[in-house]
Amino acid sequence: MAVTTGVGTISLARFINANLRGASQVFFQNNALTGFIILGALFWGAQAAGRLVIAFGAVAGLLIGTVTAMVLNADRGSLIQGLFGFNGILVGTALPTFLADHPLLWAYLAIGAAVSTVVTLAVANVVKAWGVPGSTAPFVLTTWLLLLGAYSLSNVPIAALSSPALPAIGTPAGQPAVDPLLVILAKNISQVYLIENVVTGVLFIIAIAVSSLRGAAFAVVGSVVSVMTAGVLGAKATAINAGLYGFSAVLTAMAIGAVFNPPSARVALYAVLATISTVIVQAALNTAVSPFGIPTLTSPYVLTMWLFLLPRADLAPHPHHLPVPQGPLTRK
Amino acid sequence: MAVTTGVGTISLARFINANLRGASQVFFQNNALTGFIILGALFWGAQAAGRLVIAFGAVAGLLIGTVTAMVLNADRGSLIQGLFGFNGILVGTALPTFLADHPLLWAYLAIGAAVSTVVTLAVANVVKAWGVPGSTAPFVLTTWLLLLGAYSLSNVPIAALSSPALPAIGTPAGQPAVDPLLVILAKNISQVYLIENVVTGVLFIIAIAVSSLRGAAFAVVGSVVSVMTAGVLGAKATAINAGLYGFSAVLTAMAIGAVFNPPSARVALYAVLATISTVIVQAALNTAVSPFGIPTLTSPYVLTMWLFLLPRADLAPHPHHLPVPQGPLTRK
Amino acid sequence: MAVTTGVGTISLARFINANLRGASQVFFQNNALTGFIILGALFWGAQAAGRLVIAFGAVAGLLIGTVTAMVLNADRGSLIQGLFGFNGILVGTALPTFLADHPLLWAYLAIGAAVSTVVTLAVANVVKAWGVPGSTAPFVLTTWLLLLGAYSLSNVPIAALSSPALPAIGTPAGQPAVDPLLVILAKNISQVYLIENVVTGVLFIIAIAVSSLRGAAFAVVGSVVSVMTAGVLGAKATAINAGLYGFSAVLTAMAIGAVFNPPSARVALYAVLATISTVIVQAALNTAVSPFGIPTLTSPYVLTMWLFLLPRADLAPHPHHLPVPQGPLTRK
Repeated sequence: MAVTTGVGTISLARFINANLRGASQVFFQNNALTGFIILGALFWGAQAAGRLVIAFGAVAGLLIGTVTAMVLNADRGSLIQGLFGFNGILVGTALPTFLADHPLLWAYLAIGAAVSTVVTLAVANVVKAWGVPGSTAPFVLTTWLLLLGAYSLSNVPIAALSSPALPAIGTPAGQPAVDPLLVILAKNISQVYLIENVVTGVLFIIAIAVSSLRGAAFAVVGSVVSVMTAGVLGAKATAINAGLYGFSAVLTAMAIGAVFNPPSARVALYAVLATISTVIVQAALNTAVSPFGIPTLTSPYVLTMWLFLLPRADLAPHPHHLPVPQGPLTRK
Repeated sequence: MAVTTGVGTISLARFINANLRGASQVFFQNNALTGFIILGALFWGAQAAGRLVIAFGAVAGLLIGTVTAMVLNADRGSLIQGLFGFNGILVGTALPTFLADHPLLWAYLAIGAAVSTVVTLAVANVVKAWGVPGSTAPFVLTTWLLLLGAYSLSNVPIAALSSPALPAIGTPAGQPAVDPLLVILAKNISQVYLIENVVTGVLFIIAIAVSSLRGAAFAVVGSVVSVMTAGVLGAKATAINAGLYGFSAVLTAMAIGAVFNPPSARVALYAVLATISTVIVQAALNTAVSPFGIPTLTSPYVLTMWLFLLPRADLAPHPHHLPVPQGPLTRK
Repeated sequence: MAVTTGVGTISLARFINANLRGASQVFFQNNALTGFIILGALFWGAQAAGRLVIAFGAVAGLLIGTVTAMVLNADRGSLIQGLFGFNGILVGTALPTFLADHPLLWAYLAIGAAVSTVVTLAVANVVKAWGVPGSTAPFVLTTWLLLLGAYSLSNVPIAALSSPALPAIGTPAGQPAVDPLLVILAKNISQVYLIENVVTGVLFIIAIAVSSLRGAAFAVVGSVVSVMTAGVLGAKATAINAGLYGFSAVLTAMAIGAVFNPPSARVALYAVLATISTVIVQAALNTAVSPFGIPTLTSPYVLTMWLFLLPRADLAPHPHHLPVPQGPLTRK
């Protein structure tokens, strides 16, 4: 049996494998078993929240993202590694999380997941000159546009977005006590898939460990460092408790510490600085998106990861005293 | 007779020809007759709205943009094709549309149109690495800065900008009935030049058809698809009626379907997906610009066009499991 | 005696020299004496404002930025020229200016100054393809994130940021009379370091002149042109008086007129157009940052400088009639 699109055919087994790998690529893994556990954990978390629709949205987004890549005849090696599914699955998870379960939601989700593959190809082209990955930037851009659009489109009603508001100084008095650390640590990891559930977080860690112990270790380190940083800096306790200061930090710690740099003590320290920075960037982008009524998604991770991967050994800042190549002003 | 700047001379006939072509380049054409009809249609629409000043602004912006390119000794082939006029003409159309007819407006417009040529050269440099056109991005950037600036500058008073406001959920009750389809279809096209006028829209289509039947066909397809999409998704009827959900979609349909890809059924389908996406991006950017009190201009087209042109055959997303080139952390 | 980091050793004299040059690089100079005078002027201005803490913050940011570059084993030639200190010193100046003098401020400042060096390397990588300098963009990005973050972090309390507000049209009635021109001209220059002090401004000009008379001349020209432009366009008198319409314009005039282009009358005219544009961009970005409650910092300079340096002689905008390189849609 095979899955055929207008332009390509792939065996059903390979198609399923590619999609499972896609679910694992959100955590930088290329492993079908990891993806399988993640999908199970996602269903568990969605069911526990009484929002099974989120898990169905995830699967729909995953499949549509991959099929769109087949239709567009995109790079086959990338397809098989799941690199055209991991943005689609996140779009598919996010839309039912924030928008109401209206019939048109599913058309909106299908368009969004398909476009996320176009955006994945576009971002890959943009960033390739700098040797950094596009990562979940296509998910962030596509979902931001879909959520912002929902404010102007009455047939895709909003269910759970914070009202647009100007940033306010100061913390609400009487913060709730911070939850047990282990609970927060697990939620930091489950929130990568927008789920707030301890079991889901633990299963995610197991799923990562199946594929990469180093990856799982840095996920835990990122989770711990983010809670400490957010606590010391005085972030809102309800947000810390819900894992909202941790999910981007977890991804940064994995990317900088375990995925895109070779193992060393210096890399580990650099990853810790990047993780601390991600918490500050999370706080900053919470402020920045507030007037628009949208969540940051993984943008704090994407921005920080780029900033910490872009430095290169042979780089020197542009000296101030040498003229740049001459322009129209000096042409004969 | 000739037009001489500090650095270049060009015959008057060629100068006029370059400017007419500039007016046509807004619709991707390189045709003086097309430009002539467009200018006539622009005067018709401005006169009908009792704002002839808008057409004079357009002509001033066009001439200043082109002359600035001559002064800067910019690429002569591009100059003669009108590629330094089409951002200037849009700046010149937009400023009298949104700002009050105050004496300093014309100095502001002159600076803006001149700078739009600098920005055209700058954007061309930035995007050339990716093989995509700068298109009307210089117009959008320059005009946004000029309009945002007007909020802080009391001698360039604002006449017709929406007050800055946080995005609000929901559609106003009792929407007006949607206008006849043919009226909206024409306005979708006239609004590319910020004019809401049926005759202007029809003349624009004729002007495009004189140069490219395929271009005109995709303009109409873009107009139809945008109205259907905006209607199904529940966009505000007053905005649909005014052609405000169509002008960017028309440009996207032409760019993706007729200008930058060879003809094929697949390209046509891809152009339809891009057009649908432009409507959602238009809704999104309406929300995003709302706190700043500025219009989207053609930014929904520019963003969507880039996202749909950037994918390339040889592209593969950055694999997650391979290290990027090593940076300072690993240098000996 | 020497300064040793984990990876590099440098003599103490050379280390101090590199840091003094770093202070001078904010004004595009590579001169330890210039940096020494600037630091003195900074202490004078901070003391006069009763905020000596700002000068201490500056020194801390400068040292941390440089040491971080040593730890990261960054390009040694750039290090010795002070190119890893000038963003750190600005971060260190800005944070005590806008945030409260709380114990955690200094940890926040240390992280920010260290990260500014990472961001300097990152931005250098991003912009090198276009032959333009990163300049103070790393300072702007890093400081914006730190200030936005402070809105969400109760342990780094805000002391002196404008409350987030939607842009409002119109100028407050009864503007204060504009101060004597020479006072404003000096403050335009002192505000490059966020200081509003005539003596500091005069010392800065002397410091620049010690290294480059042409640079000092264009700093003065930029200061004069910015006051005239802001006055004619009707910018708020209190902002003009405080030098807030001049500091970015001063940097643009120096960059375009004296640093990155060879001397000529045409370059001087181009620099004047760039300076006028910087005032409009300053007005625009004042509006744009208003909902976020952060200052523009030197972003008007960075944006305008990039737009005016990016044009190149061999550049032609992308022609509309030629297809771009073919993508997935046309692959066999």
